[in-house]
Amino acid sequence: MAMHKKVCIIGAGVSGLRAAHKLLTAKDTLLLPSDVIILEAQARIGGRIKTDTTLSKLGLTYDLGAAWFHDALTNSVLYSSIEDGSFDVESDGYFNDKDMCYYAKEHPGRVDAAGLKLEQVVEDIEKFIEIHFLHSLGVPDVSLSEIVALYMKKQDCFLTAPQKQLCGRMCRYLELWYGISAHKMSGKHAVMSHQGRNLYNKKGYSFLVEKLQSQTKCTIMTSEQVTTIQRDISGQNFRHLVTTAAGTEIAADYLVVTVPQSILALDAEHSYGLTWDPPLPARIQQSLKTIHFGALGKVIFEFSEIWWDASEDAFEVLADENTGADVATASGLDISPFMYPIYVFNYATIQPSAASLVILTQSPVTEYLEAKPHLAWAYMKPMLAKISMQQICEPINTIVTDWTQNPYSRGSYSALHVGDDPSDAIIQLSGEYESCGLGISSTVRFAGEHTIADGAGCVHGAYDSGERAADWILKHLAENHQAKNAS
Amino acid sequence: MAMHKKVCIIGAGVSGLRAAHKLLTAKDTLLLPSDVIILEAQARIGGRIKTDTTLSKLGLTYDLGAAWFHDALTNSVLYSSIEDGSFDVESDGYFNDKDMCYYAKEHPGRVDAAGLKLEQVVEDIEKFIEIHFLHSLGVPDVSLSEIVALYMKKQDCFLTAPQKQLCGRMCRYLELWYGISAHKMSGKHAVMSHQGRNLYNKKGYSFLVEKLQSQTKCTIMTSEQVTTIQRDISGQNFRHLVTTAAGTEIAADYLVVTVPQSILALDAEHSYGLTWDPPLPARIQQSLKTIHFGALGKVIFEFSEIWWDASEDAFEVLADENTGADVATASGLDISPFMYPIYVFNYATIQPSAASLVILTQSPVTEYLEAKPHLAWAYMKPMLAKISMQQICEPINTIVTDWTQNPYSRGSYSALHVGDDPSDAIIQLSGEYESCGLGISSTVRFAGEHTIADGAGCVHGAYDSGERAADWILKHLAENHQAKNAS
Repeated sequence: MAMHKKVCIIGAGVSGLRAAHKLLTAKDTLLLPSDVIILEAQARIGGRIKTDTTLSKLGLTYDLGAAWFHDALTNSVLYSSIEDGSFDVESDGYFNDKDMCYYAKEHPGRVDAAGLKLEQVVEDIEKFIEIHFLHSLGVPDVSLSEIVALYMKKQDCFLTAPQKQLCGRMCRYLELWYGISAHKMSGKHAVMSHQGRNLYNKKGYSFLVEKLQSQTKCTIMTSEQVTTIQRDISGQNFRHLVTTAAGTEIAADYLVVTVPQSILALDAEHSYGLTWDPPLPARIQQSLKTIHFGALGKVIFEFSEIWWDASEDAFEVLADENTGADVATASGLDISPFMYPIYVFNYATIQPSAASLVILTQSPVTEYLEAKPHLAWAYMKPMLAKISMQQICEPINTIVTDWTQNPYSRGSYSALHVGDDPSDAIIQLSGEYESCGLGISSTVRFAGEHTIADGAGCVHGAYDSGERAADWILKHLAENHQAKNAS
Repeated sequence: MAMHKKVCIIGAGVSGLRAAHKLLTAKDTLLLPSDVIILEAQARIGGRIKTDTTLSKLGLTYDLGAAWFHDALTNSVLYSSIEDGSFDVESDGYFNDKDMCYYAKEHPGRVDAAGLKLEQVVEDIEKFIEIHFLHSLGVPDVSLSEIVALYMKKQDCFLTAPQKQLCGRMCRYLELWYGISAHKMSGKHAVMSHQGRNLYNKKGYSFLVEKLQSQTKCTIMTSEQVTTIQRDISGQNFRHLVTTAAGTEIAADYLVVTVPQSILALDAEHSYGLTWDPPLPARIQQSLKTIHFGALGKVIFEFSEIWWDASEDAFEVLADENTGADVATASGLDISPFMYPIYVFNYATIQPSAASLVILTQSPVTEYLEAKPHLAWAYMKPMLAKISMQQICEPINTIVTDWTQNPYSRGSYSALHVGDDPSDAIIQLSGEYESCGLGISSTVRFAGEHTIADGAGCVHGAYDSGERAADWILKHLAENHQAKNAS
């Protein structure tokens, strides 16, 4: 016997929590906490927000998932959290955007990026890419590696020897944004337009999850993996029926589906896939093939003392090659150091005298290390040894994320491979276009970082998409209510 | 008795020279050198290109006008000059874009821009401006000073004390791009999108003028100030008649009018104005009021020895105030040091051991110093004293430009004041739009840096606009020729 709710939200990540929060806190809402339920597959809520306080041996707090407020000029989560007092920029935030310190295997000490004008060339490459793709619409997509190689060839006479040697490799910093290799990355969509700086969230993103949850007070059922969604059922006093692996059935008038793109893209037969009845229209299924899912991972090392320059925000150790070809994958995860660049975040800027480094990794390194976390130090040590003239210490603690091992996340967030179309899935899933997705009037709404253009892949994008779903439902409810009262 | 030419070009700057060059060197051109004439008001050709080899006491060459290849990824002049061998990037070019060294009156020594993350905030301000104006089309224009002040107010909680103190003043670097003060500058159009880096032209831009002239071989009459343009005259065997102050009359089928915006905008009664018969349509006259003319000037000091850090590309001495208000103009050119920022170009990067500094100035400083060049050292000395810990030397030579004193240029190049519309004049003068300007089929064509969007204000923009005029004429001639042959 199904429990009947007005709204059933699938997923208790930021988008689902914000959807519930908005539904229940909006002025003049017609919904009560008992009208809304959230089903969460995992034993915990928060989705790809995961603030950990238990793993550190130094008493530190780490965000194993999302950690920054990106687009700090327009970030809705940031500004609403400042406004309601839950986030104080001065004590809780840090702009870790000091000029990057670069290292390369063949260079002793820090690369003199300023003296060699390396960033100027990286910026030039990014402008070249923009011009290449935007000034002629029919140009076929190529990988970031290929478009960088084209720049190097075409602009050769403008470059110094160190620029030729280093700048292509520096462009691979984008791997640590998307969590995929330059070899696979869409060149056309590699260069982002940021709406402001990136503010590191020192207090941990759990504050947001806790705030949304505490202000919402609807039931959240955890460890309830949704397996089947029957939609637009006729002849019943409810519209949709959701069934979980544990056998729970929720009947609902409105659904908000916030599962990650990595789950949506699975076949119905897959143990973690969703069965849709009727199946999702071909246009949605197709669109899910034009985006991919990245694997940004983190490896955290804690030490008994700081052996690097504690005044720097971050270090980037370059890969040996420009190309970013997935040698690794080809030869069965035989990954060696300096094949892929790493971004090393100096945690001493976040908590004074914290002898901790947080390293970002990309696919396929993330899969490799998340599967075998005991190899993390051996893999990272030769690269980390570059960032200091001092003797490198052995870590007293190693923490490795498990996003690629977790069957409910299956990676980090959506990312664009060569030939992908970022707008297609968004158009199909945003619910804002007639004849697209499930249609503008379907009471099944999608939300999540993969369903929105502004803030795609980010906490605030997920948050805004949850709000968008809630707003639609609130409007629809109000219209139906008015219609009933009138009749 | 008028001399009859097929094409009369008014102005022997880059746009006029390129128009003649293209007309006479195009494959299958129907024109001979004797069919084309250029009338130039000044005693010299080149317009706002002026490479000087006579004023230096150190044997140096200076470009008193245009000096850089801007937009080095797409610059037509740069690529055509590389291709024909007239410009060698390695020996003739220099990217002077090393991280800027900033100085301020209240700071001893160089401002630690990297450590204080000042450039990051300047970039954030520029993104803020873009978002402010582009994300809501109806937003009224305000000055650069005002929009920067708005950022400082709105984003206060994100900024450190040094950032609040310095970054607004750093944004005034744009004054040294446009040659106008932040107080007058359109905020909406202040932030430029560059198509690549800026390549300094070490050999001097005269190479381009000489190349165009030597390959063209049509008559160029100098010291011939055009005073009257009679157009579309009926009942004659020519279409237009141009008269100069010296009484020269040129009858022509096609006119290319390349006089600067500062001349076009003058009343017909003005001694340096043009009389149009019939008068220019109101839409053109109106459009000339929606752009202004900047006054970028240069002050060059030569010394007996280098007393600054010869390894740096450039120094910027900040003004004391954020606002850029024209205090100066209000109080009758009572300009003091540190009221306006200066950009100081280290000429030792161009010619080894050249003890020379080239300083860029903006209006109203340019007018002030160009009128009284003997005051240049007294004005600059306190600001220049900031850029070195060493004792500042007295100069052995001072060179000041005279663009604002020259009645044929009246400043540097077009610039946008608050409320200006950059596209209006371009639409009216480009000759590419029906019912705009003189119409798509008029045989009077306009050219010059003020008539084109890509490369506006630049040598390559002027060059491309001259080519555009020539291409139109060549096509029109070919069509008429075919029509005649057919009939």
